Amino acid sequence: MSDLLTIADKTFSSRLFTGTGKFSNSQNMRDAILASESELVTVALKRVNTTDLEDDILTHLNHSSIHLLPNTSGVRTAEEAVFAAQLSREALHTNWVKLEIHPDPKYLLPDPIETLKAAEILVKEGFVVMPYIHADPVLCKRLEDVGVQCVMPLGAPIGSNKGLKTLEFLEIIIAQSNVPVIVDAGIGSPSHAAFAMELGADAVLVNTAIAVSQNPIEMAKAFKLAVQAGRMGYNAKLAPIKQTAEASSPLTSFLNA
Amino acid sequence: MSDLLTIADKTFSSRLFTGTGKFSNSQNMRDAILASESELVTVALKRVNTTDLEDDILTHLNHSSIHLLPNTSGVRTAEEAVFAAQLSREALHTNWVKLEIHPDPKYLLPDPIETLKAAEILVKEGFVVMPYIHADPVLCKRLEDVGVQCVMPLGAPIGSNKGLKTLEFLEIIIAQSNVPVIVDAGIGSPSHAAFAMELGADAVLVNTAIAVSQNPIEMAKAFKLAVQAGRMGYNAKLAPIKQTAEASSPLTSFLNA
Amino acid sequence: MSDLLTIADKTFSSRLFTGTGKFSNSQNMRDAILASESELVTVALKRVNTTDLEDDILTHLNHSSIHLLPNTSGVRTAEEAVFAAQLSREALHTNWVKLEIHPDPKYLLPDPIETLKAAEILVKEGFVVMPYIHADPVLCKRLEDVGVQCVMPLGAPIGSNKGLKTLEFLEIIIAQSNVPVIVDAGIGSPSHAAFAMELGADAVLVNTAIAVSQNPIEMAKAFKLAVQAGRMGYNAKLAPIKQTAEASSPLTSFLNA
Amino acid sequence: MSDLLTIADKTFSSRLFTGTGKFSNSQNMRDAILASESELVTVALKRVNTTDLEDDILTHLNHSSIHLLPNTSGVRTAEEAVFAAQLSREALHTNWVKLEIHPDPKYLLPDPIETLKAAEILVKEGFVVMPYIHADPVLCKRLEDVGVQCVMPLGAPIGSNKGLKTLEFLEIIIAQSNVPVIVDAGIGSPSHAAFAMELGADAVLVNTAIAVSQNPIEMAKAFKLAVQAGRMGYNAKLAPIKQTAEASSPLTSFLNA
Repeated sequence: MSDLLTIADKTFSSRLFTGTGKFSNSQNMRDAILASESELVTVALKRVNTTDLEDDILTHLNHSSIHLLPNTSGVRTAEEAVFAAQLSREALHTNWVKLEIHPDPKYLLPDPIETLKAAEILVKEGFVVMPYIHADPVLCKRLEDVGVQCVMPLGAPIGSNKGLKTLEFLEIIIAQSNVPVIVDAGIGSPSHAAFAMELGADAVLVNTAIAVSQNPIEMAKAFKLAVQAGRMGYNAKLAPIKQTAEASSPLTSFLNA
Repeated sequence: MSDLLTIADKTFSSRLFTGTGKFSNSQNMRDAILASESELVTVALKRVNTTDLEDDILTHLNHSSIHLLPNTSGVRTAEEAVFAAQLSREALHTNWVKLEIHPDPKYLLPDPIETLKAAEILVKEGFVVMPYIHADPVLCKRLEDVGVQCVMPLGAPIGSNKGLKTLEFLEIIIAQSNVPVIVDAGIGSPSHAAFAMELGADAVLVNTAIAVSQNPIEMAKAFKLAVQAGRMGYNAKLAPIKQTAEASSPLTSFLNA
Repeated sequence: MSDLLTIADKTFSSRLFTGTGKFSNSQNMRDAILASESELVTVALKRVNTTDLEDDILTHLNHSSIHLLPNTSGVRTAEEAVFAAQLSREALHTNWVKLEIHPDPKYLLPDPIETLKAAEILVKEGFVVMPYIHADPVLCKRLEDVGVQCVMPLGAPIGSNKGLKTLEFLEIIIAQSNVPVIVDAGIGSPSHAAFAMELGADAVLVNTAIAVSQNPIEMAKAFKLAVQAGRMGYNAKLAPIKQTAEASSPLTSFLNA
Repeated sequence: MSDLLTIADKTFSSRLFTGTGKFSNSQNMRDAILASESELVTVALKRVNTTDLEDDILTHLNHSSIHLLPNTSGVRTAEEAVFAAQLSREALHTNWVKLEIHPDPKYLLPDPIETLKAAEILVKEGFVVMPYIHADPVLCKRLEDVGVQCVMPLGAPIGSNKGLKTLEFLEIIIAQSNVPVIVDAGIGSPSHAAFAMELGADAVLVNTAIAVSQNPIEMAKAFKLAVQAGRMGYNAKLAPIKQTAEASSPLTSFLNA
């Protein structure tokens, strides 16, 4: 009856991955992440403060259910990304890395060329590589070919909360992928997360939509339920879309009999 | 901490209303409806078989948590609808009625003129009237003016599973309604239901999408969670949609320092 | 080779109907309307100034190619609409009337009940009735039954420029209508107008999008071409939408031979 | 007056580029392309039959207004693409090339890595490179950096006729590009082409939608007008989208005075 997600050597009950950015304070962040029941939480290396242990983000995320996923946010080239990944492996004692390379300061969109280059190097160095990329089906296959453990195509520009604007391409990516597909960026509401799961995504990563909500803890719970709902809907098989109506109530003829 | 929905004299914990059509058999129907935790279940008068008690739909729905909502499905005029409502009040000992008048045999879309006419009569006769209508904001106000207890605008043609195709108008209806707004028809997946709740709908009615799923019980649970998720998201206030990206991970500058 | 549109006793070469509101001045309005080559131009009775002939809107629209279509904009009931139509017949010597009844001051959405009531009266009084209505397929059929000469369903709230947000219902209306279908309200760009025509609409009515453009004359020409393009596309039959790709260029195998 | 498009050393009056695939016969193809008034026509190298001059596609396209644009359709790597481009330069006496590299036989989506690699080589070899790519804003900038003369992002999978499914990203590409942006693939109807132009695209490339229409010549004219309409709408500045209605007809108060 289990419906677990496996990535590399880890198995997850929750298909909702979260992040640590944009929360108003660390306590809020911790409470929301625990409420989400997320088991994989991404953290930017920059935010890891190894000198001031009191306020360090890691202290707040030190919980048995949470695996930390350092990301390379802020780098602009493959070389910088590889270096950041190596640093994070040292600092956080994990060989998992969310590979994010975005040279573009305005839209923060990922660079396909540098991402493939860095992925190839990092895989060889023994990293579990989770690349954040455009919803480009060909790029996804090439990343799979160099040995990444999943692909993380974007739904919409990061922080836009616009939902699955790349729908046509996510469908292709999901149809042809041999590694888990995790929709990352753009998911702005629980219904977006449920929709991604209904399409057959293996997981979603949500950060902004929880962190900037008026009530992050409640919103975290909402996303938890939405991801479960979408996954259950996917497993139970959705009803097909029809062009003509079909009444669910049978027509009563007795009034005209 | 409660977030209950009140219609007329009844209070509901669940904002997922369901129907009884299209299930493969009565046991399946009963199990799915109980799994959905729905407290208001619509039933076509035609399906109520008062002579054959063994197989009667009412036997299967005889559960303390379930309120039956007879509908007038199959009628084509106000006169027929009023007669059907009177019959159902006799048969089911309830003054609640879901008013459905669709002269159109192909798309089963509701008739605005006959619906308003019947609503006015039925309200005067003491019915709690829940009209199924096009997502027409002016019609909703007129129905409210004659005393209906809620409005039930459609999201898409019934049985189409297309979702909230009337979005622009549902937003207006929700913004200006003084009675509960229940999105009815067209909801084909859990994410559609969550989306309706995020918009501020008070409840949704789902039938086809549960009944024709490969696993109606699992799908019923999925809708239950999705409605909860959407409502929680609405209550916690969704993050705004942005035109430019905003990284959730702060940019790290140390690599270039 | 002609592809003319007939409504009542008039035949139109142009399927672009226009309006006279919101232009910065009367000269601008006249020039844009002539540039659009529109042959049916709606005018609010209020704007007809029969006492000040110098600045009267009618002077500017006195052109052999232009038929004036008085509208009842501003009325809130059937009774007011009938009175307005009678006044306009007197003032403008035409029995054509665009029937607009919107009690709602904020969204200016049409009232289905009052519109049907007024249409029935006006048809009996010999008017050519062109009703502006919600994209409600059942209402369209009822209006057809009482003898209107066309139906004018809205694409989106008037002045919103959002395009064909009622697509699902316009398709049904077009499929089942026996009178011309003219998409009115919401058309904000030439592509919206082309799209309406591709769906099989018989004409579109555009006002705001031309009048408030930075260059109304150029925009009027753009709409003229877009309506022609959409109609030609409809007549030539659009290519079907496909789920898998099909290259238009044949795959070359010679490189691998 | 003039609103010309310049790419490398050529100037175009028409912003509609076309292709030669999928037509039922060569005469049909020629007539449709002439009717479209397209000045840049892409042709797959494979279709150029230099031995059988009678039926050769080039004979049919030998017209003073038409510039041929050989494409590399069918290649799967940068190396193959460079070779194909060199062959086409020999055969067609042009240094222009539409760079298409799609290793994926099902969806025919372009490979970002190989495309950038080939573009860099071809630019150095003196080609005017027009790359067909995913609507990836970062890739577009990188291609611009290596010296391509335009970018050709896709609207939807080739041959799908689904329109501008990559809208969110086309907007970004157009906003930040320093070379012309030509929307290629997915444009299935005149309204799609008009929409691309309204967004600010510099041109569109249409093939399937014209070739497989029931009446390719009429459809070609429809696209010609639609591209003009969209461009004129863009130049005249579209009216903004509004959330609340604004009547174009002023409210008449006289009936209530």
